[in-house]
Amino acid sequence: MARTLRVALIGQGFMGRAHSNAYAQVGHFFDIPYQVDRTVLCGRNGQTLEAMASRWGWRETTTDWRTLVDRKDIDVVDIATPNVLHAEMAIAFAGAGKTVLCEKPMAVTREEGERMVAAAKNVRTMVWFNYRRVPAVAFAKRLIDEGRIGRVFHYRAVYLQDWPTSGGTTKAWKLEKAGAGSGVLGDLLSHIVDLGLYLNGPMTEVSATMQTFAEGRDIDDATLALARFTNGSIGSFEATRYAVGCRNRNQFEIHGEKGMLRFNLEDMHRLEYFDATLPANVQGARSIMATGPDQPYSNNYWKPGHVIGYEHTFIGALGDFLNALGRGSEFHPDFADAQRVQVVLDTIERSAKSKSWVAVE
Amino acid sequence: MARTLRVALIGQGFMGRAHSNAYAQVGHFFDIPYQVDRTVLCGRNGQTLEAMASRWGWRETTTDWRTLVDRKDIDVVDIATPNVLHAEMAIAFAGAGKTVLCEKPMAVTREEGERMVAAAKNVRTMVWFNYRRVPAVAFAKRLIDEGRIGRVFHYRAVYLQDWPTSGGTTKAWKLEKAGAGSGVLGDLLSHIVDLGLYLNGPMTEVSATMQTFAEGRDIDDATLALARFTNGSIGSFEATRYAVGCRNRNQFEIHGEKGMLRFNLEDMHRLEYFDATLPANVQGARSIMATGPDQPYSNNYWKPGHVIGYEHTFIGALGDFLNALGRGSEFHPDFADAQRVQVVLDTIERSAKSKSWVAVE
Amino acid sequence: MARTLRVALIGQGFMGRAHSNAYAQVGHFFDIPYQVDRTVLCGRNGQTLEAMASRWGWRETTTDWRTLVDRKDIDVVDIATPNVLHAEMAIAFAGAGKTVLCEKPMAVTREEGERMVAAAKNVRTMVWFNYRRVPAVAFAKRLIDEGRIGRVFHYRAVYLQDWPTSGGTTKAWKLEKAGAGSGVLGDLLSHIVDLGLYLNGPMTEVSATMQTFAEGRDIDDATLALARFTNGSIGSFEATRYAVGCRNRNQFEIHGEKGMLRFNLEDMHRLEYFDATLPANVQGARSIMATGPDQPYSNNYWKPGHVIGYEHTFIGALGDFLNALGRGSEFHPDFADAQRVQVVLDTIERSAKSKSWVAVE
Amino acid sequence: MARTLRVALIGQGFMGRAHSNAYAQVGHFFDIPYQVDRTVLCGRNGQTLEAMASRWGWRETTTDWRTLVDRKDIDVVDIATPNVLHAEMAIAFAGAGKTVLCEKPMAVTREEGERMVAAAKNVRTMVWFNYRRVPAVAFAKRLIDEGRIGRVFHYRAVYLQDWPTSGGTTKAWKLEKAGAGSGVLGDLLSHIVDLGLYLNGPMTEVSATMQTFAEGRDIDDATLALARFTNGSIGSFEATRYAVGCRNRNQFEIHGEKGMLRFNLEDMHRLEYFDATLPANVQGARSIMATGPDQPYSNNYWKPGHVIGYEHTFIGALGDFLNALGRGSEFHPDFADAQRVQVVLDTIERSAKSKSWVAVE
Repeated sequence: MARTLRVALIGQGFMGRAHSNAYAQVGHFFDIPYQVDRTVLCGRNGQTLEAMASRWGWRETTTDWRTLVDRKDIDVVDIATPNVLHAEMAIAFAGAGKTVLCEKPMAVTREEGERMVAAAKNVRTMVWFNYRRVPAVAFAKRLIDEGRIGRVFHYRAVYLQDWPTSGGTTKAWKLEKAGAGSGVLGDLLSHIVDLGLYLNGPMTEVSATMQTFAEGRDIDDATLALARFTNGSIGSFEATRYAVGCRNRNQFEIHGEKGMLRFNLEDMHRLEYFDATLPANVQGARSIMATGPDQPYSNNYWKPGHVIGYEHTFIGALGDFLNALGRGSEFHPDFADAQRVQVVLDTIERSAKSKSWVAVE
Repeated sequence: MARTLRVALIGQGFMGRAHSNAYAQVGHFFDIPYQVDRTVLCGRNGQTLEAMASRWGWRETTTDWRTLVDRKDIDVVDIATPNVLHAEMAIAFAGAGKTVLCEKPMAVTREEGERMVAAAKNVRTMVWFNYRRVPAVAFAKRLIDEGRIGRVFHYRAVYLQDWPTSGGTTKAWKLEKAGAGSGVLGDLLSHIVDLGLYLNGPMTEVSATMQTFAEGRDIDDATLALARFTNGSIGSFEATRYAVGCRNRNQFEIHGEKGMLRFNLEDMHRLEYFDATLPANVQGARSIMATGPDQPYSNNYWKPGHVIGYEHTFIGALGDFLNALGRGSEFHPDFADAQRVQVVLDTIERSAKSKSWVAVE
Repeated sequence: MARTLRVALIGQGFMGRAHSNAYAQVGHFFDIPYQVDRTVLCGRNGQTLEAMASRWGWRETTTDWRTLVDRKDIDVVDIATPNVLHAEMAIAFAGAGKTVLCEKPMAVTREEGERMVAAAKNVRTMVWFNYRRVPAVAFAKRLIDEGRIGRVFHYRAVYLQDWPTSGGTTKAWKLEKAGAGSGVLGDLLSHIVDLGLYLNGPMTEVSATMQTFAEGRDIDDATLALARFTNGSIGSFEATRYAVGCRNRNQFEIHGEKGMLRFNLEDMHRLEYFDATLPANVQGARSIMATGPDQPYSNNYWKPGHVIGYEHTFIGALGDFLNALGRGSEFHPDFADAQRVQVVLDTIERSAKSKSWVAVE
Repeated sequence: MARTLRVALIGQGFMGRAHSNAYAQVGHFFDIPYQVDRTVLCGRNGQTLEAMASRWGWRETTTDWRTLVDRKDIDVVDIATPNVLHAEMAIAFAGAGKTVLCEKPMAVTREEGERMVAAAKNVRTMVWFNYRRVPAVAFAKRLIDEGRIGRVFHYRAVYLQDWPTSGGTTKAWKLEKAGAGSGVLGDLLSHIVDLGLYLNGPMTEVSATMQTFAEGRDIDDATLALARFTNGSIGSFEATRYAVGCRNRNQFEIHGEKGMLRFNLEDMHRLEYFDATLPANVQGARSIMATGPDQPYSNNYWKPGHVIGYEHTFIGALGDFLNALGRGSEFHPDFADAQRVQVVLDTIERSAKSKSWVAVE
């Protein structure tokens, strides 16, 4: 009989909704060793909280997260709040022995991140770098690990959104330093830095620049960086909310001696693979539908040729985490992994300020 | 307070799973006037039925569908069984006053379909031609209705799958006349005929051919048809399970005096639109992400640039149906619409046999 | 020392220009055993003929093609006139022992074509089905011949143009039966039928329909056909000038047990190849740049990654023909090959009239 | 009557061939005020020179370029030699009053470039940054000049080739400092810097890195740079010969407040345009075939939908230059424009050495 896992979720915005969906759906698609109980939904806006809890099946609500810290009937706390609140909450809950899940960016500063890692050293943690769980991305990782790309020369990543033209928010905590800590650095670049570390290993140094386009805004609208990796490859990272024409292009390209991989979140069911070990005349970028068979998660969802969506990246992350939790096995990305991202983000900020290359760590 | 709607689902295969998910999720994404109660799951395989019911939240199970007919505590019956069983079940449940939902193809013969329509004339019905609820398809319909395409010249539809090479089933009720009634005719062609009728109106005549590639199989592996439409356009329809290289290409292209529309289910979040009313030098096929804003269903799911998947076509169909049911307003496609599809399928079969053009109706 | 080959070209329109370019360029890209002499340019419009001859390096001009028949100083006659003139000219020149090149469609009727083949049985001939010489098409042929596709199930070809919206001609010999003999049947469908025969072998029967959209026009604006091939595959062919949104989509798709090939003239430097013999999880449609290395014509033009254009299909056809002529070896497509196309076109017309399937031959 | 323009071409390699073709073809596609006379072909390899001259219609050959300096019967000298020879030759010919055309990169150092500009101040010059003459690129420039993109936020350019896997040269002057002066910096990055200056205006500062992957090579295999432009936008530039999987991806993307443009040389007949001034729900990246009508060069070559190739970029550059020469009007890019590229390249080299941002000029 599956054990009951009692979850408290803090956050009632877009991420609150995405996480709620993941808790509702994870048992439908993953064989997990738990009965997930949506115990408490916590948020600051009492007026809408009840309706959201009712819609998504949360049994209770509260507007005061501190009341959750000492509750014995809560096993897992999931933090999906504005970034500036992550550290205090995570440290409190970890201190109380809870399993802690945290939205990205894990922290607002490197120092905060360090404290979070330290506080959580005796509890299980997970950070919602959900794009690792896109089947196509997980498949890219598998192909790399199998040696299909060989020695890597280039890693090139962008995360391009177009807030001014796609009806994106113009007023939100994400657009203020007081809520988000940074602009695209934490919101978008953190995702592609995490994927870069995951797929291509650690970086040695970066040179970056940050830019604010909007009048009177105190965060970065765009951040670009060049990077050198430990494996000898060179790369570039760019995140911006001013890439008019790109709704949600989280893209990477990896060129190695044996081939190329390319992924774009806008077409998340596809992975492009160029196999340079084939005879030259039949080489070409191959568009693989990452809906199975024999690919990551292809037994979890539907059938080959039948796509999944954005929300399944959260379901997949949660499914993997709950299984790791149940088996007591490793899970990545945890707080330590996320702190590696924080270190790169911090180095990027320092490089942008000093206008020079800065070593990572 | 939302009324409780008690549902019985008959079917425990792939469609049973897709429908179950829709019942579980519809309230998360749609404002519906019901509390959906997953009352009974019915299926013939008692060994796996319980596990499936438990996973998907069905309160009871039964292996005998006839016991459901007279139960007063069931409002809606959803038929997701092999095709040959649809008619008997639907007629029985409609006769008992139930709201009846039925998988496609609605029937195995035109005559069966006629009887189903007659039997259901006093109840609400829905047929799961779910691809009408792909946001990109619904958006195509809207653009057509707005006159963006103008007089139509050509309608071209294919439904291409590659069962031999994509790990598709080789033994299943779908591959036998005794279970499915036909091959791709009912399974795939029915979908693109429904979309053709929905988007381009009635057909006047067809010329078709049917082909079996596999040794000893008694159904069509491929069916092709030319068609003429009432609106003066000409079209073609092709469905096959032997289109090696195409995992799930349900595609249509419409060319009118003012523009072109193109859709491919493999990239279901996109609609291609060529606006021929623009100056010639800036005309081009435009790849529109149908994830909002201001597009069908863009307020239901996530945010612009964040895609949904195959399963959401079922959620969308159910959401629309439940709203129509609650308001007492029209819903399409119902049994009468599905019967129009049956008539075309029947005409195609007769054309293939007679090797000549045959008038529709 | 290369022998001089004296050429007379009849035609001063778009094809006259494309052929002139081929004569000027063939020696730059092909090692041919001739010095090509652009001896005479013949056309009916005396006012523009001189300027065209001067621009393209023709030494003489004439407005009377009959004066060319008995000239001893002409080795090759190239017919690029309105279709209705082909037969009379070709028969006259073949009778005079000239090597005869002829634009497509070779003839206006099957009977004309028969007479042309008979008249030319002792001379070398070539018909400008130039798309066989697209490197990507020639490479497709090579892959098929190597067995990469295996048993073929489906052949699907379209030739889609959008004359009403792309600034296409509205008054021209191509739009009148008196000049062209037919509409898209001869102009566009002939191309894709030729490629179909070339790539997939003979057809056994067809079912077709023809349509005129424009008021008062006496030719077909669109022709669609279903076909069965000797090799057991089934196919479809569609040609239209009313495919708004498609500038010049001459496309084929072939599905066989081992893979798929797809080509579109709008992106003529690419061939898509799906290799179904690879493990299922790395299968995908591969976009091969057909610019070399180790592909047809990759030593003739530039370097891998550097594309050629429409005009090179004429240069390639001519280069291959001149080499075959010099070596006395076979060349295809000749008049006999083109007559096989005529037979299919004739069968399509009869099928459209009889509204039934008609056997080819 | 058109004046005769007597041309000497120095160079018998790949560029010698591309330029020869341009001289042979320019009069076929452009109305130019000259009769171009291919007077002398000059090259160091006497063994192959004669055959090349014969094939491409050059009347004379020489292996000593110095003999050309004082010849009165030569009007134009075109330098298509290894980069390290450009300066000495150009200065000598300009001093002798010749019109001078020079391959890119114009010079090997900024100082060389300065001397070339000074020496050529009284003669007409042109530098073969031929990609400005891709119709799609010229059309992009027109759209920008029309204000279709508005205020620019981002400019992103890559030039990606895959020499190790596409059968590229492994031993050539291009791969040695003694012949080329630099690696991809001069060969590939120069092209995208020129396009960047052409399309987006001057840069103010750059941060760059250069990398050699091959053992024992003394030039850069890859160069990456971040840049800031005078117009307030930020950009990135990357050139590499180690982008396995990319045959010839010379690509740019421009994001402005009103739209996006994207171009990739591998599909040089297309320009992608996202018009962000349209209603949000019909916005999308539009693939425009840049084959006309009403686009740059659409009256020079074939018909809408009929593509041209790589070689036509040289023909177009030459056609434009000869017309400017004949009319005495401005032509770009000339030596002064190319020197602006040299300044950026020089700044990039200094930035890579100093590992910091360096101001341009």
